[in-house]
Amino acid sequence: MTDQRWLSPAELSAWKKFIAVVELLPGVLDSQLQRDADLTHFEYFSLAMLSEAPDETLRMTALASLTNSTLPRLSHVVSRLEQRGYILRSPCAEDRRATNASLTAAGRKKVMHTAPGHVGTVLANVISPLSADDVNDLDRIMGTLLEKLDPENRFQARGA
Amino acid sequence: MTDQRWLSPAELSAWKKFIAVVELLPGVLDSQLQRDADLTHFEYFSLAMLSEAPDETLRMTALASLTNSTLPRLSHVVSRLEQRGYILRSPCAEDRRATNASLTAAGRKKVMHTAPGHVGTVLANVISPLSADDVNDLDRIMGTLLEKLDPENRFQARGA
Repeated sequence: MTDQRWLSPAELSAWKKFIAVVELLPGVLDSQLQRDADLTHFEYFSLAMLSEAPDETLRMTALASLTNSTLPRLSHVVSRLEQRGYILRSPCAEDRRATNASLTAAGRKKVMHTAPGHVGTVLANVISPLSADDVNDLDRIMGTLLEKLDPENRFQARGA
Repeated sequence: MTDQRWLSPAELSAWKKFIAVVELLPGVLDSQLQRDADLTHFEYFSLAMLSEAPDETLRMTALASLTNSTLPRLSHVVSRLEQRGYILRSPCAEDRRATNASLTAAGRKKVMHTAPGHVGTVLANVISPLSADDVNDLDRIMGTLLEKLDPENRFQARGA
């Protein structure tokens, strides 16, 4: 441990701010979605990923990857969303051992009705306070971090 | 909702990357701390905040604020850390209705032994992949977001 490198003052300043944002932002997103749509951000994100997929359908394993979730955790959440009528599960036609999750008409309506308020929260808390240069810098920096944190691009955040 | 503004392609690109990092980073920090020190990031952060406080002591309400936690959640975590011998709770001398949390000698040792591995994780996953300019840009952008997300500077991330 003699070669331990610590953070420089500039690095520590950036890290303390960054980790504070990482701690605070999910609560802001969750609060608005819970209040206005009775959805957690994870539930909304799962529905939104399905709404963007071809035929609004994904294998459960693919949806777990896109939402950075384990399959048991996702199955639990999808069960609740299925009970609420937003998702339908069915065996995959190409591989009977696999399960597909599809958005229902009610699920599509839920995403459409929920998106404006969610986007408004993102604009108010993240995008609007930033300049166009800030947005470009944020894109570059987070892209660099994702090469490390998400090397397989499971989130497809760096382009599909 | 006719005036709904959506994200521009540049904003959406930055947001998708940013939210992916926000989702992924806590798991990376937690995994290393759990594996190497049997601590969650929240537990480590609580101990670290005490280690930086005068006399290594804070009122529970102040520690809850610094860790962005509710008092019930913090009390639960502090109970476990007290059982493990890292924290001692006592009535506040100035206000008997208030409770102080202090780091014990074992708690101080735990922070000192845990810090190098944690800092190594932060360096490897966040700081080292970034250039000095990136670190400055990250500091500026996260500072701007915190003015919105943490207006009272409870995290003291923008300087105490």
